[in-house]
Amino acid sequence: MSKTRITILGATGYTALELIKILLRHPYADIVAVTSREDKRLISQVHHSLSGLLDLQLSNLSLEEVVLCSDCVFSCLPHTASAKVAPELLLRGVKVIDLSADYRLDSPDKFQHWYSEPHPDPDRLGNVVYGLPELFRKQIIDTNLIANPGCFPTSAILPLVPLVKSNIVESTDIIIDSKSGVSGGGRTAKLNYLYCECNENISAYNVGKHRHTPEIEQIISTSSGKQTTVIFTPHLTPMDRGILTTTYSIPKTTSLNKSDILDLFRRFYVDEPFIKIVDHLPGTKDVAGTNYVHITAEVVGNRVITISVIDNLIKGASGAAVQNFNLMFNYPETTALLTMP
Amino acid sequence: MSKTRITILGATGYTALELIKILLRHPYADIVAVTSREDKRLISQVHHSLSGLLDLQLSNLSLEEVVLCSDCVFSCLPHTASAKVAPELLLRGVKVIDLSADYRLDSPDKFQHWYSEPHPDPDRLGNVVYGLPELFRKQIIDTNLIANPGCFPTSAILPLVPLVKSNIVESTDIIIDSKSGVSGGGRTAKLNYLYCECNENISAYNVGKHRHTPEIEQIISTSSGKQTTVIFTPHLTPMDRGILTTTYSIPKTTSLNKSDILDLFRRFYVDEPFIKIVDHLPGTKDVAGTNYVHITAEVVGNRVITISVIDNLIKGASGAAVQNFNLMFNYPETTALLTMP
Amino acid sequence: MSKTRITILGATGYTALELIKILLRHPYADIVAVTSREDKRLISQVHHSLSGLLDLQLSNLSLEEVVLCSDCVFSCLPHTASAKVAPELLLRGVKVIDLSADYRLDSPDKFQHWYSEPHPDPDRLGNVVYGLPELFRKQIIDTNLIANPGCFPTSAILPLVPLVKSNIVESTDIIIDSKSGVSGGGRTAKLNYLYCECNENISAYNVGKHRHTPEIEQIISTSSGKQTTVIFTPHLTPMDRGILTTTYSIPKTTSLNKSDILDLFRRFYVDEPFIKIVDHLPGTKDVAGTNYVHITAEVVGNRVITISVIDNLIKGASGAAVQNFNLMFNYPETTALLTMP
Amino acid sequence: MSKTRITILGATGYTALELIKILLRHPYADIVAVTSREDKRLISQVHHSLSGLLDLQLSNLSLEEVVLCSDCVFSCLPHTASAKVAPELLLRGVKVIDLSADYRLDSPDKFQHWYSEPHPDPDRLGNVVYGLPELFRKQIIDTNLIANPGCFPTSAILPLVPLVKSNIVESTDIIIDSKSGVSGGGRTAKLNYLYCECNENISAYNVGKHRHTPEIEQIISTSSGKQTTVIFTPHLTPMDRGILTTTYSIPKTTSLNKSDILDLFRRFYVDEPFIKIVDHLPGTKDVAGTNYVHITAEVVGNRVITISVIDNLIKGASGAAVQNFNLMFNYPETTALLTMP
Repeated sequence: MSKTRITILGATGYTALELIKILLRHPYADIVAVTSREDKRLISQVHHSLSGLLDLQLSNLSLEEVVLCSDCVFSCLPHTASAKVAPELLLRGVKVIDLSADYRLDSPDKFQHWYSEPHPDPDRLGNVVYGLPELFRKQIIDTNLIANPGCFPTSAILPLVPLVKSNIVESTDIIIDSKSGVSGGGRTAKLNYLYCECNENISAYNVGKHRHTPEIEQIISTSSGKQTTVIFTPHLTPMDRGILTTTYSIPKTTSLNKSDILDLFRRFYVDEPFIKIVDHLPGTKDVAGTNYVHITAEVVGNRVITISVIDNLIKGASGAAVQNFNLMFNYPETTALLTMP
Repeated sequence: MSKTRITILGATGYTALELIKILLRHPYADIVAVTSREDKRLISQVHHSLSGLLDLQLSNLSLEEVVLCSDCVFSCLPHTASAKVAPELLLRGVKVIDLSADYRLDSPDKFQHWYSEPHPDPDRLGNVVYGLPELFRKQIIDTNLIANPGCFPTSAILPLVPLVKSNIVESTDIIIDSKSGVSGGGRTAKLNYLYCECNENISAYNVGKHRHTPEIEQIISTSSGKQTTVIFTPHLTPMDRGILTTTYSIPKTTSLNKSDILDLFRRFYVDEPFIKIVDHLPGTKDVAGTNYVHITAEVVGNRVITISVIDNLIKGASGAAVQNFNLMFNYPETTALLTMP
Repeated sequence: MSKTRITILGATGYTALELIKILLRHPYADIVAVTSREDKRLISQVHHSLSGLLDLQLSNLSLEEVVLCSDCVFSCLPHTASAKVAPELLLRGVKVIDLSADYRLDSPDKFQHWYSEPHPDPDRLGNVVYGLPELFRKQIIDTNLIANPGCFPTSAILPLVPLVKSNIVESTDIIIDSKSGVSGGGRTAKLNYLYCECNENISAYNVGKHRHTPEIEQIISTSSGKQTTVIFTPHLTPMDRGILTTTYSIPKTTSLNKSDILDLFRRFYVDEPFIKIVDHLPGTKDVAGTNYVHITAEVVGNRVITISVIDNLIKGASGAAVQNFNLMFNYPETTALLTMP
Repeated sequence: MSKTRITILGATGYTALELIKILLRHPYADIVAVTSREDKRLISQVHHSLSGLLDLQLSNLSLEEVVLCSDCVFSCLPHTASAKVAPELLLRGVKVIDLSADYRLDSPDKFQHWYSEPHPDPDRLGNVVYGLPELFRKQIIDTNLIANPGCFPTSAILPLVPLVKSNIVESTDIIIDSKSGVSGGGRTAKLNYLYCECNENISAYNVGKHRHTPEIEQIISTSSGKQTTVIFTPHLTPMDRGILTTTYSIPKTTSLNKSDILDLFRRFYVDEPFIKIVDHLPGTKDVAGTNYVHITAEVVGNRVITISVIDNLIKGASGAAVQNFNLMFNYPETTALLTMP
């Protein structure tokens, strides 16, 4: 198979670092450029773990330059920045995998409501493929633009969709209590992400207003066929990586038990290479550094409880992005993704 | 005021260590003995932080010896062991503060159901004071035996009781999602509490069957006047100390908002020295090493969400025990407890 | 005893927070003002752990205002800022305890060399008391200005001075390998102090050029009577607090053994309330949150190895500052400092 | 290339887990059996991260059974257990890579001295290849038995050997101050490896008597041509993985500077795929999860300081073991080892 030339936009963050690590072991990926608006160092001087492994220089490439050197662009730019460059890239034949939130919501109004800014490319919203292969593999194969899912949505949607699709829980009364590692906050010098602020500390944040909420609601609504909202409470946990999501939903029948749900999950994800349905209660460390998702369920009182764990930077971001890349460029879907740290 | 002679039963664990540290700064407490069945070292050889501060030798005192030297016993023994010694101690005039679960439940059947063992002192159950001063101060003052509350129950009961007592939420549909530091698991050499098992890992455990569940249900039932069960999901969080508890309950009126609830909390706990109602989202680090509880609330969709934080070893165990001690022995309630680390 | 009115300059950092916590339990300390150039919030909004405990508003007080309201100033300002305000404060009768490095070195040239800036108050250098009570108690009692020691120097000087003073090791060939928690870096939004940069990571920094080096050399030189330099290698360790310092020095006689050194240490520090000489190998957690120092020694091959642990924010900064305060204002030296978290 | 059938002896620990993860991505490795004396579960029930990836059952295979099914045995058994089974395996034509310390020392007396037990296979000592490919590649290719190096020795030998071999530092006065993550202690339920004992704590251990000392001394002695001892001080650091080793040695000439040493290192390791000589001060996180070693040096006063970082479980154990495996079985040396987490 021939190699694909890749440019990574906004390469100084944690997501980009993970993306680079995965692509370095990808036999058909050729990282040709890494961009930054301000940083002009070697990428290995920013991320020391790349010492001797990737010595590209960061540069502030023009769109024209990106187009000339790339077949595919992974955008790790902040929101609204991605949607400012994607249209031209697509027009010029470059495929785009957007790791920002820009193309995840299905209407400009919704985007404006949650992000307090007008969307730079409003007409495309509603027609962009949501890059969760377990649900939208066919559409991913045929598209040129991927809205790569948020980390929390990935962890919540995967256990919830089989439940609401099969109509065994109320889709309109779902509580999602998520616990994320600190890398989810990105690699920016903010006081609240300092070691001494996060270490030995767990706290809730953005209760009732986290921007991943509408993304979850959109998929649950589509899957259940019923417009709905969810209660979503994210917590910042003292660890680098990982999300554990605990969901609570109301079963429609009283006879439902744990093995019913695990069976349903196993059937639903029977051929999925990255989804493992487990009997025990998984921890985030079980999937750290991998593209795997471990999911289990319990029935307690009048609630179905699901527990799912992902690595927020891999299955929650860069691993999923490469999974999408593999599908879009017709490489085996698991290429470079089966490795464990 | 005169000093009270104290013996600590089972002094090699984390709870006992915290208790000792608090009592060392208590002007009216005199630790006269620390016991262990097997360890015969100096207590400062077990807990190096006590080097040069408390040089008592651990010993396996007989009940007779304990009675002779003590006015008050704090029992940090494992469950069922406490209830085997408490009756004789009480009979002989020694007051007992039991940090185990032995006297928390109100019936021998309930105990047998949750602990899979018959209760050694069944007749007393139903008449023991639950040592949560914010709810049972008067009874604590007058008793000789305290069932010191569990750490999770303390973190869940304090925000929930004002809500159910004032009848503004449904007491019969409450979800409690708790996140605890590892010290909650005690100081025993178990594989699942190893550093490398817990670090960089968050996981749920004992879902639907944690032994603190009936304790919570008991207090919620009494407070609401309606027999009820709760959904309780504890999570093991990679940190030494602290519990953050997120509760979800259904408001009985749609007009309820955040400030209504904070106002209710502030009135309910107006004179409480250790309860702080805060506007922001608290983290466990805000109360680490202290006897304080920080509580806030949010209203999201059709749920009241409360978030409360405690130090599981202090307000969740040894700090509460000393608060009870102060009340029982007529010392100012906050003695030795206002200090922050 | 009457109370002393205290202003804390630069109160938004970790050192100031610890200072406030200690002073809040000090019966003779009255915090009257807390300053910040830019932050105008309540101090409890900056440090949530102070909620309901200290509700002073941060303000950018003029020197005149500070003089009017204060008997004593603790300066937590960055270097050179302290030495710009201290002279006027002293002139107006306010005692100053400077937690910055401004008054630690004994000559303006040395300051200029290590801090790359001219000293704002050069004439005073050489005559300021170094606030390590274990070595300079008498001078501290009689002074109005304290140069509060750096955290690394405290951890290195305390084990080394007895060795060089008693002339049993070569003072001219000493290696100091220190490991510090991240709080030593302060509470500023710098990329290298982010949780995800520090967690699961240990690294050396400022090898051969850390600004605490001349401070150590000064005291070792004075104590040994021989001008000397040291090799000092600090390491950033993934924990909030604590310094463990391992020193290597060459014994002058081959017959020296571990108990000789521990005996020497015990005699040297016989009346010191905060120094504990221990037989075992101490860890930073043994002294976390306290003003204690635990020290031990080993003899291996041709080296005396000392190992000492302190809490960098307490004995390494704010605890020592209060110890100095107690001495300067004639309060019992251990007031507010015997407590453990 | 044909596949090699592998049995892992003692597969329930952290070293074995890492070995399995590496071998699962090795195109020519076929794990046929995993043994444990007592545990009979699926290996994926012991290590949940293997769920769905390796479902072999642990069993207590006889030597005969191991011989029949294996071309190569990796032994993760405790010391003395390896040397009890290796002779028979070798006799029967099975190659052995021993991750224990059994074959690292070159004389039975030395073994007895450091391990307080007689060596079970004394005659072989002195003739076993030390599995550090950077120094002994040729011998590794031709042997059937590998003494896989200890983690600390790997981190110390790699920077020190070029210095002593080129005779630019005194080989007889070397100090090695190492900082290791907790996984180095293994996966056994010991009190001192509990999360709450290690977290927020750094401490020295086994000062002057760590069993990796003679291993380091042996290689330094051989490399320098002069029998020598070293001062070795290991520290337990609150992190899962990684070793940072700081060495101090005395230069033989005063003119030596940093770039001289880095140049020497670069020449010495010019073709080594896993050694990266870096200008900056590396941290353990730079190599976490990889087989890489990052090394730098500084000259301070009269000392050459080297700083090296490895992942103790990979380059310090299982990665090195696979590197040796590749050489012994004539696979490309870097097979399965270039991946980053």
